[in-house]
Amino acid sequence: MEKIRPRTLSGFLELPPEQQVLMDKMTAVLRETYARYGFTPLDTPAIEASEVLLAKGGGETEKQIYRFQKGDSDLALRFDLTVPLAKYVAANYGQLTFPFRRYQIGKVWRGERAQRGRFREFYQADIDVIGDGALDILNEAEIPAIIDQTFTRLGLKKFRIRVNNRKILNGFFAMLGLSDQAGDVLRTIDKLDKIGSDQVRALLLAECGAAPEQADEILRFITAGGTSGQKLDVLAQYQGRNETFDLGLSELRAVVEYLPAFGVPEEHFEIDLTIARGLDYYTGTVYETVMTEHPEVGSVCSGGRYDDLAEYYTNKKLPGVGISIGLTRLFYVLQEQKMLSDTLLTAPADVLVLPMTEDLSAAIALATRLRAAGLRVQLYGEKKKFKAKLAYADRLGIPFVLFLGEDELRAGMCSVKDMATGAQQTLSAAEAEALLTAAVAERNAGSVIEDS
Amino acid sequence: MEKIRPRTLSGFLELPPEQQVLMDKMTAVLRETYARYGFTPLDTPAIEASEVLLAKGGGETEKQIYRFQKGDSDLALRFDLTVPLAKYVAANYGQLTFPFRRYQIGKVWRGERAQRGRFREFYQADIDVIGDGALDILNEAEIPAIIDQTFTRLGLKKFRIRVNNRKILNGFFAMLGLSDQAGDVLRTIDKLDKIGSDQVRALLLAECGAAPEQADEILRFITAGGTSGQKLDVLAQYQGRNETFDLGLSELRAVVEYLPAFGVPEEHFEIDLTIARGLDYYTGTVYETVMTEHPEVGSVCSGGRYDDLAEYYTNKKLPGVGISIGLTRLFYVLQEQKMLSDTLLTAPADVLVLPMTEDLSAAIALATRLRAAGLRVQLYGEKKKFKAKLAYADRLGIPFVLFLGEDELRAGMCSVKDMATGAQQTLSAAEAEALLTAAVAERNAGSVIEDS
Repeated sequence: MEKIRPRTLSGFLELPPEQQVLMDKMTAVLRETYARYGFTPLDTPAIEASEVLLAKGGGETEKQIYRFQKGDSDLALRFDLTVPLAKYVAANYGQLTFPFRRYQIGKVWRGERAQRGRFREFYQADIDVIGDGALDILNEAEIPAIIDQTFTRLGLKKFRIRVNNRKILNGFFAMLGLSDQAGDVLRTIDKLDKIGSDQVRALLLAECGAAPEQADEILRFITAGGTSGQKLDVLAQYQGRNETFDLGLSELRAVVEYLPAFGVPEEHFEIDLTIARGLDYYTGTVYETVMTEHPEVGSVCSGGRYDDLAEYYTNKKLPGVGISIGLTRLFYVLQEQKMLSDTLLTAPADVLVLPMTEDLSAAIALATRLRAAGLRVQLYGEKKKFKAKLAYADRLGIPFVLFLGEDELRAGMCSVKDMATGAQQTLSAAEAEALLTAAVAERNAGSVIEDS
Repeated sequence: MEKIRPRTLSGFLELPPEQQVLMDKMTAVLRETYARYGFTPLDTPAIEASEVLLAKGGGETEKQIYRFQKGDSDLALRFDLTVPLAKYVAANYGQLTFPFRRYQIGKVWRGERAQRGRFREFYQADIDVIGDGALDILNEAEIPAIIDQTFTRLGLKKFRIRVNNRKILNGFFAMLGLSDQAGDVLRTIDKLDKIGSDQVRALLLAECGAAPEQADEILRFITAGGTSGQKLDVLAQYQGRNETFDLGLSELRAVVEYLPAFGVPEEHFEIDLTIARGLDYYTGTVYETVMTEHPEVGSVCSGGRYDDLAEYYTNKKLPGVGISIGLTRLFYVLQEQKMLSDTLLTAPADVLVLPMTEDLSAAIALATRLRAAGLRVQLYGEKKKFKAKLAYADRLGIPFVLFLGEDELRAGMCSVKDMATGAQQTLSAAEAEALLTAAVAERNAGSVIEDS
């Protein structure tokens, strides 16, 4: 028979077992953290009507989307988790209780140009809080705590949550009489990190139509340094000149004010007046999260406050705040940076039980007992030499091998071999269970990310 | 602006939040149970090259598959988890260690005719053990234990794992000289439950070309009653007449023999000589699982032993054994039968914290503390009347509300309201934490399925 070459499409990540375990642990941390902040899981279909997914329409998305006909239906794969959320909330408005807090971790698809570190199928992990007509600033103030907890529990240490408020920027540009050029100005100041102050100033003059004194004022504003408190003091000097600005400043103050109560360490937080997160969507607080020693990676968790989640589907005003983690890309980056744990247990089992007698009952009963105690146990029944059986455990990184020969059986004991040290001891089932449970708990205690 | 109607495609399940929580709990039980038996998680892409997915080709699958062009690529959505596993094992043969034990829980897509209880997008939960050239019978003997643990931990009580061995059937038909008609005979005896012995006999004569004494022999064979031991005794009477039969019988004996050591209760297990699970694929032990009080549902977990996982991709002989749960359909059936728990906590939070003062710091700090203790906490900041805030907790089923007014703050206490009883008490933060932790643990202790 002619064989078909078994292959995985390029741009589609398929992890080997030991890495998949780390990916699953990462996902578990996200689920648990999001749940602690009162978010409920949502699972929307991968396929939607194209008309629904593309309600907003527009350029890049439409080109990248996987769209196809099935029977009479024009269908497409979701390209993010925000549009499905908007659809869901609009469709179920009457049944939902607001504020509606949901998390969703799921795959999305974009037919981008294949490129190293770019994926056509990838996981996003999103949380959003949706209000019905209004949404209190407390929800915006809580987001840095969620980001901080998420990354801290993953094991990341050197990261910073950068926060800005779009009302501050919009109000400030209005003060300068630059509202019409706001988009151009935003795009320009966003480059500050990359091209520096002088270049930004030149672009403000040349491309944004700013006068020299306006450009200077903008640079003074966005480069204000110091602690969050000092930055708020600088901002306070502009207070009273524009209503939108004042509102944005009071919102930013609320976010900063409650950081200690939310348990966010000062070094994980920063006001950054240059960030805007796109031009149309966000209207209040905006968030980015950077790995401080890997700025080249860009933001690993971003989002913000928006005023109208579902305007393409409903007249109901549904303001919200949300953040998104590009999980597949984050995992890829961590792997590239060698920041994924190499001490966590990623073997398919904690223990390999090797029966050494014809009758397997005693070995099976021991495995059954250890499983009931919560241990992950493989029973090895293949007809191989003893050495090959040990090699199996070794190759898979299974930390302990238990064997039950005639001697052990007669004595009601089992032999426990620690594969790391080679040490072997003969124990009762109860002793083995206690030893293994403790050793495995220790091996599982670390975090997915190692950020020394 | 004209609105697009927000809708979800028919045949695509999108659960409301409280049901999604139960679905997630179900998935968590499967993951944990599979892990205890030493299976490692695998996550393959939703999209594969059509050529790869359709390597086996053939009728129904090809008609139902979601297939589309993207650029120059002929792509399709996976329609099961077995083909992706075969691809994965064949493609990564050199890197994998055998026996390779993997579980995968993921969505698959089939464009079936829309029908109540039929889904076009649904979760499958599969486990498989793949050997390299050979695979010991111990792996087949272990499967009933995994099925038993899975459903028991989900809360199902009244179920039975039905087991047969294809070698027994094939050997038996060979003894009768009916090997050429084996397919027809299998299809006919599979109807025993539905149409009864007389009808089966008539069909064996009319459609399978069996002589009257052959038909009688078949019926005697497949209707043998009694315990597993008694059925094995009946089978023993045929021993020595056909090698395949004898091998099948010794395999079935091994499966039955080790049930007690694996902890499978007798009432959850049954030898059923009528089950075959299709004609081509399975070659040894086959499994079905029925809810004994809902036989109309059919099998909720099926599978078996096969000789050649990946013959379309590789010349390597990769025998295996696996089972699959149609998770979405199972969830749908449980819901229809009102067997899903209505006592488990499905609210988005365990506690709603209501700040009652201008400064939110104390309320936030309390929420932070409770979250650190593992509780799921929502902070409610919306400007609403007190009654509306309580109604929010009530509608979502959040079991406890904590409020912090001036009096409580001064006393360093908080008021805890049990929403079920209406009882309210003033406690210190430590007392509240202890009370809530215990109450929530109790509410989470039940199982997803209630099978009285």
